[in-house]
Amino acid sequence: MADSYLHAPTQVRTTTPLVQCLTNAVVMQFTANALLAIGASPAMVDTPAESFDFAGVADGVLINAGTPSAEQYAGMNRAVDGANAAGTPWVLDPVGVGGLAERSAFLRDSVDKQPAAIRGNASEIVALAGLGAGGRGVDATDEVADALEAAQLLARRTGGVVAVTGPEDLIVSEGRVSWLRSGDPMLQLVIGTGCALGALTAAYLGATRDTDISPHDAVIAAHAHLGAAGHIAATRATAPGSFAVALLDALHQLDRHQLENLTHLREENR
Amino acid sequence: MADSYLHAPTQVRTTTPLVQCLTNAVVMQFTANALLAIGASPAMVDTPAESFDFAGVADGVLINAGTPSAEQYAGMNRAVDGANAAGTPWVLDPVGVGGLAERSAFLRDSVDKQPAAIRGNASEIVALAGLGAGGRGVDATDEVADALEAAQLLARRTGGVVAVTGPEDLIVSEGRVSWLRSGDPMLQLVIGTGCALGALTAAYLGATRDTDISPHDAVIAAHAHLGAAGHIAATRATAPGSFAVALLDALHQLDRHQLENLTHLREENR
Amino acid sequence: MADSYLHAPTQVRTTTPLVQCLTNAVVMQFTANALLAIGASPAMVDTPAESFDFAGVADGVLINAGTPSAEQYAGMNRAVDGANAAGTPWVLDPVGVGGLAERSAFLRDSVDKQPAAIRGNASEIVALAGLGAGGRGVDATDEVADALEAAQLLARRTGGVVAVTGPEDLIVSEGRVSWLRSGDPMLQLVIGTGCALGALTAAYLGATRDTDISPHDAVIAAHAHLGAAGHIAATRATAPGSFAVALLDALHQLDRHQLENLTHLREENR
Repeated sequence: MADSYLHAPTQVRTTTPLVQCLTNAVVMQFTANALLAIGASPAMVDTPAESFDFAGVADGVLINAGTPSAEQYAGMNRAVDGANAAGTPWVLDPVGVGGLAERSAFLRDSVDKQPAAIRGNASEIVALAGLGAGGRGVDATDEVADALEAAQLLARRTGGVVAVTGPEDLIVSEGRVSWLRSGDPMLQLVIGTGCALGALTAAYLGATRDTDISPHDAVIAAHAHLGAAGHIAATRATAPGSFAVALLDALHQLDRHQLENLTHLREENR
Repeated sequence: MADSYLHAPTQVRTTTPLVQCLTNAVVMQFTANALLAIGASPAMVDTPAESFDFAGVADGVLINAGTPSAEQYAGMNRAVDGANAAGTPWVLDPVGVGGLAERSAFLRDSVDKQPAAIRGNASEIVALAGLGAGGRGVDATDEVADALEAAQLLARRTGGVVAVTGPEDLIVSEGRVSWLRSGDPMLQLVIGTGCALGALTAAYLGATRDTDISPHDAVIAAHAHLGAAGHIAATRATAPGSFAVALLDALHQLDRHQLENLTHLREENR
Repeated sequence: MADSYLHAPTQVRTTTPLVQCLTNAVVMQFTANALLAIGASPAMVDTPAESFDFAGVADGVLINAGTPSAEQYAGMNRAVDGANAAGTPWVLDPVGVGGLAERSAFLRDSVDKQPAAIRGNASEIVALAGLGAGGRGVDATDEVADALEAAQLLARRTGGVVAVTGPEDLIVSEGRVSWLRSGDPMLQLVIGTGCALGALTAAYLGATRDTDISPHDAVIAAHAHLGAAGHIAATRATAPGSFAVALLDALHQLDRHQLENLTHLREENR
């Protein structure tokens, strides 16, 4: 169903998915607060000694190598192995892939381990697929539509969902291409909104695992939840400090009616 | 005196205790801001090369192994040794003890080094005492009252104060059991409020060292300060983003009158 | 020109300088948000595997050893080498220099690698120059005016700009001594405002590189931008939680007129 994603937020709020985040130090606090706001439970268990076992307990796992120490790389590999052993869905956020050699190798290897979802901006998705050079640092320099081929390539390779975040979000899986319009440009003035979206995606995948909401719709729901909240926040705040506060408020307060009115989903006929 | 804790905030504000925090990366910013808000001075000196010496200069030390790298474990052990050598009170926050093997071993060993205070949720205190399995990730699944025996066991073993945070806080030391009612459930929707409470506890212990306020009352005061501020914040904000802002404001602005009116202390006759 | 610094903010907003921050975990989020607010682009690329190359791409680099792991020290040294190889201006923030032996050695060695600017409080600048013992933890215990000799010594040694942050900021380079009055004491109740100022300084140096705004005026501009925003925030908020929000808002919204009216620059005749 086209509006299947509208049912997913209730699923998160009633099941409180435990989301293990192996993510960068810049956005840990915001990511944890965003997860709490939508009704999920965050746990940043990222050391190699603990990450394998915890991925078997968690409902979803996020891998985001934004500030990757040697120890955190080891922890990420262990978490992915633990998630795959237990069947826990995990999300790969390829932040900064392309220009940076070491993390690019790690991220490309991670694709072969079959993440349930990949989420990045257009430049990152293109670079992860090996079709381009990546952006400048962590900024996107490509257009979302230009990442369609790369997203389809990655979706085929992983059997999972690939999301390209931008002015309009592109969500791709085998046989399905969806475009989601929501959000507000102010989201880019607050650090960690993209990284937090990776964590929300893990929460939505975990919360909808045993339901008739597909992983594709779960990924749409995560993007729609953040996008609609961003839209609401932009009506309440005109500068980034107060926008960030309003965004967390809106993530928490968002209701089904708002979600439906503030997001627009379009399926591409193929 | 039953209301001895009401005098402690002034002690913090007039002495500006220097609090060394070895804590997890998720909550470092919020912890530092909470310490500044109550009038203390934060310093996150956590490397093995520096933590021993700094613990001799600090007025209080917090040990919280929420995201423990190998280097930070070494730094924590050095800080505890430095604190014990200098007589600096230190607080142990056993976040995540139970399910996670490596940190559980570290945390149980730390109990033997005699922290001045231990602060955790019910599941953590039960697991730290070896009487239960711990919660799910970092969430409590036990009731506060069920942690009384564990808290008493730990208080006897350390000679210190043990605080169990929950809907009603339990503060235990040899021969004394206190129940504190304060706070608001919204506190659980902001990451780091529990972890920051460990740091406030270290600040209160440091600021009251050479006064006639007992360590037991200092620990009550830290919990009452956060609880009363949480109550005030909940009257000003109804969602977690703005609640977090209001909480820091209230931590800073809280006066003696509010502290008295918004907290209720009950001593258990034993 | 005395008011040359007033033109610099437009330069930042139109060029979006990419600022590589190797900084402490406590302030990473706030630093990134402050950079976004002024129109710069943050990237916390701090591992030894990536920091050299990235410093060649970045427009400015910040080195702040507030919570320095062994791996981050290595990353910092690589970043400095990369910045010097590429001619990228880099800023040294000597947080905590003095009492802490390992970081003091690192920081003093870094001075010899010729940072384009050094930014610290009075105690840090005095200690970095080898003229005093440093403050208590990260707090300044010296007066700004007492750091003049140290600042001049460091400016001569590096050929760069040295800024001493305090109630009145002192900006020194060979042959020029400027005093900037701006800001508000509330800035000290929010963690990371000083550290973020180091990052803003890197942004301003990067954005003005190929203009007729001198590095000295670029450093003044960074301090004036934060100071004026702090002044505005203090008119909107009376406690630290809401002040921090208002500060980010004001960093973003500040216009030329406000910058001019809320800062006072005085050149010292020598």
